[in-house]
Amino acid sequence: MIPRTNVLDTAEAAYQSAFGVTLSSRVRLARNLRGLPFPDRASAPVRAEVRRLVMEAARDVLPCQDALSSSTLLARQQLFESHLISRNLLAGSPETAVCRNLTSTQAVMVNEEDHVRIQALRPGLALQEAWADADALDDVLERHLDYAFSPVLGYLTSCPTNVGTGMRASVLMHLPGLVLMSEMEPIINGLNKIGLAVRGRWGEGTAAIGHMFQISNQLTLGVPEERIVADLTEIVKEVAEHERNARERLKKERRLQMADLTARAEGLLKAARLMTAREALERLSELRLGIALGLKRRIPMATVDRLLLEVQPAHLQAWAGRALDGAARDKVRADRLRAELGGRRTKRMAKRTTT
Amino acid sequence: MIPRTNVLDTAEAAYQSAFGVTLSSRVRLARNLRGLPFPDRASAPVRAEVRRLVMEAARDVLPCQDALSSSTLLARQQLFESHLISRNLLAGSPETAVCRNLTSTQAVMVNEEDHVRIQALRPGLALQEAWADADALDDVLERHLDYAFSPVLGYLTSCPTNVGTGMRASVLMHLPGLVLMSEMEPIINGLNKIGLAVRGRWGEGTAAIGHMFQISNQLTLGVPEERIVADLTEIVKEVAEHERNARERLKKERRLQMADLTARAEGLLKAARLMTAREALERLSELRLGIALGLKRRIPMATVDRLLLEVQPAHLQAWAGRALDGAARDKVRADRLRAELGGRRTKRMAKRTTT
Repeated sequence: MIPRTNVLDTAEAAYQSAFGVTLSSRVRLARNLRGLPFPDRASAPVRAEVRRLVMEAARDVLPCQDALSSSTLLARQQLFESHLISRNLLAGSPETAVCRNLTSTQAVMVNEEDHVRIQALRPGLALQEAWADADALDDVLERHLDYAFSPVLGYLTSCPTNVGTGMRASVLMHLPGLVLMSEMEPIINGLNKIGLAVRGRWGEGTAAIGHMFQISNQLTLGVPEERIVADLTEIVKEVAEHERNARERLKKERRLQMADLTARAEGLLKAARLMTAREALERLSELRLGIALGLKRRIPMATVDRLLLEVQPAHLQAWAGRALDGAARDKVRADRLRAELGGRRTKRMAKRTTT
Repeated sequence: MIPRTNVLDTAEAAYQSAFGVTLSSRVRLARNLRGLPFPDRASAPVRAEVRRLVMEAARDVLPCQDALSSSTLLARQQLFESHLISRNLLAGSPETAVCRNLTSTQAVMVNEEDHVRIQALRPGLALQEAWADADALDDVLERHLDYAFSPVLGYLTSCPTNVGTGMRASVLMHLPGLVLMSEMEPIINGLNKIGLAVRGRWGEGTAAIGHMFQISNQLTLGVPEERIVADLTEIVKEVAEHERNARERLKKERRLQMADLTARAEGLLKAARLMTAREALERLSELRLGIALGLKRRIPMATVDRLLLEVQPAHLQAWAGRALDGAARDKVRADRLRAELGGRRTKRMAKRTTT
């Protein structure tokens, strides 16, 4: 047998270095069609016309799904959990649509809060690339669509907070080190002061579930897109540096406590017969920290990152292939986690014993 | 290899049937020497004389340790955790002593609250036998000692609540079923009404840590010992029946929740790197319930019962062979639990894989 340990370790190290702190980058552009009322003020025929125009414009680059309101709530929830549609589209308003590529890294939402919302997603810290993707999509659409644009204000949007560039750039960061070292609150305050919003990916403030935070620009007026992206990138690098520093200190100063926290998380994920989404996200986050600290070498971080998405209600039901109520979900979720984490471990242990 | 499964299962079934609900029975007799002040009012020379007299009387049946106050606090704590000495002797008052047999099932404490306290302990529900043991010990001592006895009141004791028989009979019961079915409070109220005291073995009331309760008589005056013992035995049988009934319902009506609770307990006991005594008692109690419900067949209940004693601070330090502060105890306790529960499992899994 070829020893695969080093190969795996290199791949794992590369993954952790790229995504260990900053999981993903996202750029979203808000656009509206000139001369037509914003979606919430538009009549059904107008909304239908907007949808027709946008889908036609996007047709060459992205497959569109125009029957979003008639798709199942479960399908919409899955798109929502993947950050592909907003609460507006989740509710299933009529005359909406979503166009997206196969990997869902690029998408156009139609008749959401604005007529057009362009979104580009990149793994890791890659705001520049996400911006380039969104900008290219925007160029394609603009060839066919006449955007509402003011030479003074820039792009006009349904909500005044988006007027100007219409751009929201954001990153998803895993910051357990800063939370556990009680350093997250001053950092949030500091980021707010320089015009950045910090939200829990799930949950709010420093009580963010699973230590997952989204950091995004709030200013859209009077600052060019490139500047927003460059500034946010620098800030994110700084926050990531703080997080890595906090992790180092946790490892040095609270090694035993961290070993305990992460071993308990793994123990519960492998043992529980019932688990809520919230607890799953919390335990997976602790396990992810354990992997980052080098305390859990047998579980790939990518597995945890995949599970962080898949333990959510709609994804779980899609996986199960049927609708499940809350209690049934808690059981299926626990079963799945045991199979993904426990089963794997048992196989490896068996291998080790027989070789 | 001879298949041992059935043999083990029979032994395990016998153990669970005998000790699954009622772990142990205890009878304690309070006695004082005629004409001498009670210990808390006696001078040092009088206390020394009492000790000399009692130790001489007990010499033939029990080895005595007269240097209790000069023994280490750790040694006294261990006796206290084993229920062999009271808080008075734990504090290390002078001129005290404890005489006990090798298995510590019979003991005489000297210059505790009373001059003499005789104690007999039996596993399971065996109050009759414990009373016989204590009575026999009492007879031996009475041959040499002149007890303070009133024809009207009976044995005179330091605290009026013990006057009469001077007897306290008690049983230690594991009642997780009644607690989880929220039926413990009415049972405690009912027992109180018929003159029985219910205390948590650790902790108080229905919040008793580890669902362990001690039930004992409060009345010592005007009721003969045999009657107290017979009545308490009947009551304990009834409570045990209620507990078994509650466990059956938990198994039928909340099987998944019980599988979850007990799997989590086992998972944490096998994973944690730090564990307080309180958490260890709670998780061990849940694991014990899992064994009783047939959900955890690989761990003998006797192992859990031994660990319930050994995770306590003084026992843990005695095992480690050195004094440990709180933080160090939490680490050693977790290490020990992993070795006792996890290590065993790993060995078995390895065996299974290779055969």
